Amino acid sequence: MLLESLRREVLYANQEIARRGLAPHTFGNSSGIDRLGIDGSGTQPLVVIKPSGVDYASMTPADLVVTDLAGNIVEGSLRPSSDLDTHTLLYREFPAIGGIVHTHSEFATAWAQACRPIPCLGTTHADYFHGPVPVTEPLTAEEVAEAYVRNTGSVIVRRFRRDQLDPVAIPGVLVAGHAPFAWGRSPAEAVEHADLLEFIARLAWRSILLHAPENGIPNYVSEHHYQRKHGPRATYGQPKDPSDLP
Amino acid sequence: MLLESLRREVLYANQEIARRGLAPHTFGNSSGIDRLGIDGSGTQPLVVIKPSGVDYASMTPADLVVTDLAGNIVEGSLRPSSDLDTHTLLYREFPAIGGIVHTHSEFATAWAQACRPIPCLGTTHADYFHGPVPVTEPLTAEEVAEAYVRNTGSVIVRRFRRDQLDPVAIPGVLVAGHAPFAWGRSPAEAVEHADLLEFIARLAWRSILLHAPENGIPNYVSEHHYQRKHGPRATYGQPKDPSDLP
Amino acid sequence: MLLESLRREVLYANQEIARRGLAPHTFGNSSGIDRLGIDGSGTQPLVVIKPSGVDYASMTPADLVVTDLAGNIVEGSLRPSSDLDTHTLLYREFPAIGGIVHTHSEFATAWAQACRPIPCLGTTHADYFHGPVPVTEPLTAEEVAEAYVRNTGSVIVRRFRRDQLDPVAIPGVLVAGHAPFAWGRSPAEAVEHADLLEFIARLAWRSILLHAPENGIPNYVSEHHYQRKHGPRATYGQPKDPSDLP
Amino acid sequence: MLLESLRREVLYANQEIARRGLAPHTFGNSSGIDRLGIDGSGTQPLVVIKPSGVDYASMTPADLVVTDLAGNIVEGSLRPSSDLDTHTLLYREFPAIGGIVHTHSEFATAWAQACRPIPCLGTTHADYFHGPVPVTEPLTAEEVAEAYVRNTGSVIVRRFRRDQLDPVAIPGVLVAGHAPFAWGRSPAEAVEHADLLEFIARLAWRSILLHAPENGIPNYVSEHHYQRKHGPRATYGQPKDPSDLP
Repeated sequence: MLLESLRREVLYANQEIARRGLAPHTFGNSSGIDRLGIDGSGTQPLVVIKPSGVDYASMTPADLVVTDLAGNIVEGSLRPSSDLDTHTLLYREFPAIGGIVHTHSEFATAWAQACRPIPCLGTTHADYFHGPVPVTEPLTAEEVAEAYVRNTGSVIVRRFRRDQLDPVAIPGVLVAGHAPFAWGRSPAEAVEHADLLEFIARLAWRSILLHAPENGIPNYVSEHHYQRKHGPRATYGQPKDPSDLP
Repeated sequence: MLLESLRREVLYANQEIARRGLAPHTFGNSSGIDRLGIDGSGTQPLVVIKPSGVDYASMTPADLVVTDLAGNIVEGSLRPSSDLDTHTLLYREFPAIGGIVHTHSEFATAWAQACRPIPCLGTTHADYFHGPVPVTEPLTAEEVAEAYVRNTGSVIVRRFRRDQLDPVAIPGVLVAGHAPFAWGRSPAEAVEHADLLEFIARLAWRSILLHAPENGIPNYVSEHHYQRKHGPRATYGQPKDPSDLP
Repeated sequence: MLLESLRREVLYANQEIARRGLAPHTFGNSSGIDRLGIDGSGTQPLVVIKPSGVDYASMTPADLVVTDLAGNIVEGSLRPSSDLDTHTLLYREFPAIGGIVHTHSEFATAWAQACRPIPCLGTTHADYFHGPVPVTEPLTAEEVAEAYVRNTGSVIVRRFRRDQLDPVAIPGVLVAGHAPFAWGRSPAEAVEHADLLEFIARLAWRSILLHAPENGIPNYVSEHHYQRKHGPRATYGQPKDPSDLP
Repeated sequence: MLLESLRREVLYANQEIARRGLAPHTFGNSSGIDRLGIDGSGTQPLVVIKPSGVDYASMTPADLVVTDLAGNIVEGSLRPSSDLDTHTLLYREFPAIGGIVHTHSEFATAWAQACRPIPCLGTTHADYFHGPVPVTEPLTAEEVAEAYVRNTGSVIVRRFRRDQLDPVAIPGVLVAGHAPFAWGRSPAEAVEHADLLEFIARLAWRSILLHAPENGIPNYVSEHHYQRKHGPRATYGQPKDPSDLP
């Protein structure tokens, strides 16, 4: 069986979606990518993704599906998640990411359904997202008819390009009228970001109902917070062994 | 004992109402129908319904009540749910349904109490309900005086007829000033729809408080989502064995 | 030890306050009354009430305090709940009630803090409260200075007298700027009503945020619902043995 | 190992942050102070604080860090909480407090993000906070650049000085655009106050959405409630042994 370790990571991320209450039923999905591929050359990166409509509780690593970046199945007998083409497009366009998680988590989805970006109203947000959580444009009728799932990826990428947003500094997005996608360097980090995005969305929702200022906290505060967690001179957490992976 | 299998299904749906937190106390109720009846001829369909005001925890299949479509008790020593006449009327008028679940779930009831339909604000909704979740007219004083419970069914049916709604594509409704009813091909599917209706109601409630556009997502998106789950070329979940029941 | 059975009932009601999440910390309290008293003559009714500021988890029947209707301690070594004088006044003025529960449950307290009655917006409400849940006037500065706790009872009684409300048909109230009190024929029924009041308050809160009509459902509907549960020809639940206590 | 007992108290407070759901992930932190220091002279008070970014579940007393009031590490191999300088400044400026807890609890953070004080809308609030829960001014760009964490303490102290607020009577604060800090005579009391602050914030949030009067309850009521719990003639709870610590 190919990519046993990555399969376990993706399965773990999927189970975390359920354990953290980020998606009821089988709405959520997760994937991971091995960018070097089997031969280590990087010429054929491989994606591991959950199968479509299978219960989390009974899923095993062998149920996951391996595809190439064009979405062709390389290994697996089950049908892959119906959102596969969104995942592969994001992996092609955002080369720094290693895992993707899609949820229908309650508050992030409410912002997505309201077609509103989540403003940065506090330091909890600033610690993880470098600026507002962006919301995409709706898909056009042509995009839906042509390739709905792939074009869900296209509107995400278009949104990031429009304002030159960095997917590493902004590890998630709201798809208008749909729900959030989050990502990270690994499937585990992606699900952590999906969870933080939901927490941020919940705090912002409660704050906005108290008429919080929509322009959010001053830029010098959010910048400080983001840099203290992610900048070159991060002061949060325990010092990392310099040989750690980035 | 008649209809042992259907009794177990209805009991399971009832217990799911409690397990999923869809109704406190003994507010909810569920039923199922055997359209062929004991002799398999279809001349006397039989309904299995929960008894009135009995605790979920201690209920056994033998406590359930069997009635005909006119509500006459065929088997059972306990009084049937006080909502029986709503159930039997819906079975008479909606021949495609096999199970009904009535809850007082929190968010769906809030929409019902506000006498507002739930607009289709996102793909979570579009995956399960083909258009807004409709709300009935209130019962008139005459309808209440004449036959309150049966006429609760009448206002539901009238609402579906008014706009030629299809109860298979829209598997639930809000009764104004009261609470939701949901249904499906079986009691298990009915409780699943009751749970999804609550989730949709919760998402929409949170979205509307963020001033989501009330006309909802474009029709070409909701149509696409509904068809990908329910249309003849569904791409969601694993392929069904063609010999599966519809 | 006096009144062992009533002590257990009051302790049970207290523990239910915690188990149902109706009051954090030691905010809530409950009591029950034996109207006939020890000698069965009715000349000295006895009240059993929880002690003040004691953890629910470690409380035993022996910790409860027995007082007369003037609040004099008849048995018990601990100080009674600081709300004792509200309880005894309600027992004196509402002769039909046998148990009282005071909580700081979240949504009922929100309505109390907003100084608004809870309108009857649906049948869930109508099944248990015969009309809106009333809210008291605030205590005056003189009433606070003179006897704060007793006068908390006075504003409740005054509110019921003003509109000739029946405490049996309306088994609870919101004290403005404070929190709810609920009651019933027994401590167990009082805590059940406290729980239903919270559920009704939550439904109404969510409905009002959707701009539900504040005048509520038509009177002919609420009347029908109340009567079907509580009227002489109640059709809800299983038939009672005519020898049951009322 | 220094201060074993205080280490256990601080660890307990930290675990309570998680158990009571007051902060997801590793957002929260707690500390305690031994004002007499090791030699009992009071010349070198010692602070015990949680380490930065360590999971609550695996933390042991030995992981905690001991510092002096200037923030110099006296014992411990892990890096202290990144909020250390806020804690030490509060200990220097508020000599009556013995423990501090910082959370990102949901509703208190919503008020902080909305930059609004929590008005005293009811007796639940009045029992614990003597007046509204204050909110700080935002830090200036200069304060952020100079010493962000220490100046978070400075804006808190400045807010209390501006209106001559008493940190014993008002055991918590909202830092604008950030989150709450709470304190008490001990780490255990600090976490209790953090929890009550969240409960008060939740009640107030729900009340304000019902358009509660923002000026809150009359002063003569809040004064009465505060004094009955904290004044010299407190009537709440069981009588204290006069030899109890204050």
